[in-house]
Amino acid sequence: MIDLKSLAPLFRPASIAIVGASDNPAKIGGLPIRYLKAAGFSGAIHPVNPARETVQGLTAWPRLADIPGDVDLVVIAVPARDVRGVLLKAAEKGVKGAIIFSAGFAELGASGAVEQAELAAIGRGAGIRMLGPNCSGFANFSNGAWVTFAPLLGEGQARPGNVGMVSQSGAFANFGYRVGRDRGVAFSQWITTGNAIDVDVADGVAFLADDPQTKAILFYMEGCADGRKFADALAFARSKKKPVIGVKVGATGAGAAAVGSHTASLAGADHVFDAVMRQHGVYRARTVEELFDIGYAAANGAAPVNDKVAIASISGGVGVLLADAAASCGLDVAPMPAAAQDTIRGIIPFAGATNPVDVTAQVINDLDLLEKCLDVILQQGEYGTVACFMGYLGLSEEYSPRILPLLNAIRARRPDSTVVFSTLFRPEIRAQLVAEGHLFFEEPTHAIRAVSALRGFADSFSRQAEAAPQLEKPAPALAGAEGALNEFDSLSLLREAGVPAVAPLRVRFEEEARRAFRALAKDRPGPVVLKILSSDLMHKSDVGGVALGLETEDAAAEAFARITSLVAENAPDARTEGCLLAPMMWGGVETILGVARDPIFGPVVMFGLGGVFAETLKDVTFRVAPFGEEEAARMIGEIRASAVLGGVRGAPAVDRAALARALSTLSRFAAANADRIESVDVNPFLVRPEGAVALDAVVTARARE
Amino acid sequence: MIDLKSLAPLFRPASIAIVGASDNPAKIGGLPIRYLKAAGFSGAIHPVNPARETVQGLTAWPRLADIPGDVDLVVIAVPARDVRGVLLKAAEKGVKGAIIFSAGFAELGASGAVEQAELAAIGRGAGIRMLGPNCSGFANFSNGAWVTFAPLLGEGQARPGNVGMVSQSGAFANFGYRVGRDRGVAFSQWITTGNAIDVDVADGVAFLADDPQTKAILFYMEGCADGRKFADALAFARSKKKPVIGVKVGATGAGAAAVGSHTASLAGADHVFDAVMRQHGVYRARTVEELFDIGYAAANGAAPVNDKVAIASISGGVGVLLADAAASCGLDVAPMPAAAQDTIRGIIPFAGATNPVDVTAQVINDLDLLEKCLDVILQQGEYGTVACFMGYLGLSEEYSPRILPLLNAIRARRPDSTVVFSTLFRPEIRAQLVAEGHLFFEEPTHAIRAVSALRGFADSFSRQAEAAPQLEKPAPALAGAEGALNEFDSLSLLREAGVPAVAPLRVRFEEEARRAFRALAKDRPGPVVLKILSSDLMHKSDVGGVALGLETEDAAAEAFARITSLVAENAPDARTEGCLLAPMMWGGVETILGVARDPIFGPVVMFGLGGVFAETLKDVTFRVAPFGEEEAARMIGEIRASAVLGGVRGAPAVDRAALARALSTLSRFAAANADRIESVDVNPFLVRPEGAVALDAVVTARARE
Repeated sequence: MIDLKSLAPLFRPASIAIVGASDNPAKIGGLPIRYLKAAGFSGAIHPVNPARETVQGLTAWPRLADIPGDVDLVVIAVPARDVRGVLLKAAEKGVKGAIIFSAGFAELGASGAVEQAELAAIGRGAGIRMLGPNCSGFANFSNGAWVTFAPLLGEGQARPGNVGMVSQSGAFANFGYRVGRDRGVAFSQWITTGNAIDVDVADGVAFLADDPQTKAILFYMEGCADGRKFADALAFARSKKKPVIGVKVGATGAGAAAVGSHTASLAGADHVFDAVMRQHGVYRARTVEELFDIGYAAANGAAPVNDKVAIASISGGVGVLLADAAASCGLDVAPMPAAAQDTIRGIIPFAGATNPVDVTAQVINDLDLLEKCLDVILQQGEYGTVACFMGYLGLSEEYSPRILPLLNAIRARRPDSTVVFSTLFRPEIRAQLVAEGHLFFEEPTHAIRAVSALRGFADSFSRQAEAAPQLEKPAPALAGAEGALNEFDSLSLLREAGVPAVAPLRVRFEEEARRAFRALAKDRPGPVVLKILSSDLMHKSDVGGVALGLETEDAAAEAFARITSLVAENAPDARTEGCLLAPMMWGGVETILGVARDPIFGPVVMFGLGGVFAETLKDVTFRVAPFGEEEAARMIGEIRASAVLGGVRGAPAVDRAALARALSTLSRFAAANADRIESVDVNPFLVRPEGAVALDAVVTARARE
Repeated sequence: MIDLKSLAPLFRPASIAIVGASDNPAKIGGLPIRYLKAAGFSGAIHPVNPARETVQGLTAWPRLADIPGDVDLVVIAVPARDVRGVLLKAAEKGVKGAIIFSAGFAELGASGAVEQAELAAIGRGAGIRMLGPNCSGFANFSNGAWVTFAPLLGEGQARPGNVGMVSQSGAFANFGYRVGRDRGVAFSQWITTGNAIDVDVADGVAFLADDPQTKAILFYMEGCADGRKFADALAFARSKKKPVIGVKVGATGAGAAAVGSHTASLAGADHVFDAVMRQHGVYRARTVEELFDIGYAAANGAAPVNDKVAIASISGGVGVLLADAAASCGLDVAPMPAAAQDTIRGIIPFAGATNPVDVTAQVINDLDLLEKCLDVILQQGEYGTVACFMGYLGLSEEYSPRILPLLNAIRARRPDSTVVFSTLFRPEIRAQLVAEGHLFFEEPTHAIRAVSALRGFADSFSRQAEAAPQLEKPAPALAGAEGALNEFDSLSLLREAGVPAVAPLRVRFEEEARRAFRALAKDRPGPVVLKILSSDLMHKSDVGGVALGLETEDAAAEAFARITSLVAENAPDARTEGCLLAPMMWGGVETILGVARDPIFGPVVMFGLGGVFAETLKDVTFRVAPFGEEEAARMIGEIRASAVLGGVRGAPAVDRAALARALSTLSRFAAANADRIESVDVNPFLVRPEGAVALDAVVTARARE
């Protein structure tokens, strides 16, 4: 788990030294001092500058060592070549945190990476937690620790807020700070990690999850060196019930290539990042405004208590647009109860009183009518959320000042309701609404998007109780293995792990085929299948290595002779180990379960349907192992073709619970044997109306190092 | 086709009478007079008010009849009950256009609808083109004809613009006017249709397509009474190379239900509207801001000459985000040529010079560097588009004034390039950029979305040359038919229409089965299939009515006996007409072609894959008939599972051209017989590596009225 305690001297320093301190408050070494003073930082500020007595009015020290007392945090604003020396001095001084503004390390290529690795080693050895290099620092708005040279932060913000942001990119963080403020976000913490020599986005998320001032967490990420730490941080944030909204770039080939050329980060496989975020209830934003809109909503909005959304609109048309938007994201635009409709029409005679409610232009001149309607909707309608669209009411000098009292009154009477307001606003009206923590959006559909996101967070938090998956012991069979195990051993391994799989019998000569047939027939009469056993052959039927529907022991014996000779002829180089005889199974849906090893996140489980679905149409979904059965059930529902499991063309529905159990079990097996498994391919995994069974499988062990 | 000439007196009146004229410039009957005067309308303005000598300083007339000379347009601002009388007087006066502001008609229910129908009949009889009732009128910004009471229009706009909007909803149009202006849109025309007694969204689109001041067309629509007219209007706009961007609400069940309760409009089947829009190159917007953002781009941006997009970003991270966005919408983030990379690094030493180009913060202080880089990118890189992200440069008092000259210089040198700029802006800088028609977006990903839309319009316009599909003559066989035709007749009908289909032989007794087998074997030896012939049986195999793989005439004869007796036993009530014998066909992909009759758009062709794809997974796509083969090819590419046609699991790719030909032929057949066809179901339509063939089909004729 992430070591939060060691981050405290870095992010909540009592004393800060600035090496490379400048008397010029516009320079990189001068800006943090200016900001710290302006923001009212209450700790000690120690400029280090051998050429000056004072810096910006503060006593300057020639060297770090000269500073009296302890220094929690050192800010390193010197050229790249001097960083190492400063860090060594900081270690001698017993400093516990360092921020390296300096650029010129891993982002420049191999030699820079070597120098960066040296810094990392020094820091690790001395127990110094480090931010950067090539970063813009951080700003803690609750204690005035603005340890950054980012120019826009200098303009200040209206109030210390409740949204924490951690960004790998300084430029993104700078831009985002402005976009966020314009969209109602007030920041609690603002952190940039740059080359992330030590503290990375995961540490930032965990720190923010633990920060009492932070209610919602935003991140911007390009790549990730330690997937487990990232997943742990997200899990920690969820355990603290803090919504996390993230931008992860490099989603496409073009983007991933650009990440590579832009920083030293691994973009990683996007479908795996996507799975990790989904698994931990992270809202993945695809645009800058979306990141901050949802962040603003998460920090200010009450989570809707149910999926029911009422829409109250001054425009019937926009009301319909919002109903479409709400239905599209899975919210329930339930009809208004008849009694409530009557009440509404009693308030506004010409109102459309179903849902959406068309409150008509009459409410503009008389906002009391709107307030009464909203009360009726929330009270009689039992909607968790009301989304209210009021056109450009917020631009009216006459009427807009009434919006805030109206929203306050409703909140006072119904604190558990989610109210989201949409109108074009005069800036001063916006500012009031922000200050009082109301939810509003100029674009009406974004109000619905926000409600959907809030509902998603609530869902995610409610899943905390799901049993943590228990890992089994590593499988002894894998300890000595290397490369692909044959079908017999692979199926055995899965069965031992608890994944249902056929138990074929091995057959080495014709007479054994007869004997095996009889043995199977005793337990379970019916046709059998005979297959060549060879881990060299991926497509056994292509070389004549499969015989289906054998109904007698004679047929089984003949098939053995035929198969072995055909394979010898068609694939003379394949090593074979006889054949497998197994009962034939049919009825149900063929699926594919897989495990692959992701370089960042470790074993990842894949699920898809057989036939063309997984292989041709890429209709598959992923989760990082291990996970429980409820998570597996969500996974199953994510593929586009999941309706096929519901029973089609007269076939009965299949056993999704058995499938979910198998996926979860496979994930626990994969996690327990993470260091020994290269991949698992269960294909087909037949899900039947009752139960499920693996018919074929290949487990591949990792090569020895 | 739409009668544009008759719309001229309505939308470009030389003289306007206002019945219900008020001296109070804030009232519904006073606002249009105030606006007409303020906007400098050059024609005659005639207030009609029996109680006053003058209205707002203009001579008032007691009655319409008293006005000297011709009146083009009458504005009716009286209570609903008086509208009919005014309209009759207008007809007597020879007025050619009428705007009915008054509410209280079809939107109130059945009795209002009757009164509205009476107005329609009066207008039609007198040749009066009518807007409304229950509408907010229109504003023509090029001639000052602001014939509306919409309050916000009164605030004026900076310049007559080039974006025309037609909206069914007045409230949406009002809100949109403000949102649009805020997002850079300058309007040429602003039209609301309300209950659309006569002039509807389609007329508006056609008028705007014909309007020389209008460069891009926006619409907002809830429902549509005349689908053909709407499609014609979109086709006309495309022929004029005017981009159309539309919001059509009622996309979901919740939304469609709300449309029903909100207006008298038919929401219609959303998948059909969607198909019509796609077919005509309309950009369907899902949010309000998207409508206006794309409208702004379409009115100002040069269409990109190719799909290649270069990204120049001050933030590497946002550069990657934009690369992801571009790749996701099908644009080509092609790498920068090596020579261009060298040139860029010569200009900015630490630039990331691939694509995205990371221009670094160095350019802020020296925008000449950026200008040089953009030149190199466009010239040496041969990119049709460059998207430039500059963070919050536009907020800088010092540097932002340099943005406009930079963009002007680049446009002067490279007028064929599309340049789109993203930064946060000071309002005055924004205004300058709008005034000079540059493309910019505060949200960086919206810059990419706009480029993608512009590229889509260019594609759509380039398709004009595609041959218009020729309709065949109506099929005589359908003239007398009613209900479902049997398989034999259905297949024959399709073959006659030019859709490839098997030609089975009819078999009425065992000996005929032998004869038919021999006849088929002569042309095409191989196994045959025998099927019961009955239009009462939808699932023939369920009742034992199908025998596959018959290889001898004996087998065929036996099968005939077996099938007829099984069907008699299992489905004693089904009327049968013997059997059909046909060659067995396999190899290829089973698809489904269908025709359904949409109440708004007439015959609609559906395409999907067989098996679970169409029926369970609803992976189908639609087009309104008729359409050509190139449109059919696009249709085929739209289904999610289209990769299956490319050959999977070792199977060869199938003949997409034959499939496209069949879809287009089917569409022409459906259109030619639109009044006689209820539906067509071709299932399966087997698409083979070479050629394609319908194996089974049901054509259902419409019931006689």
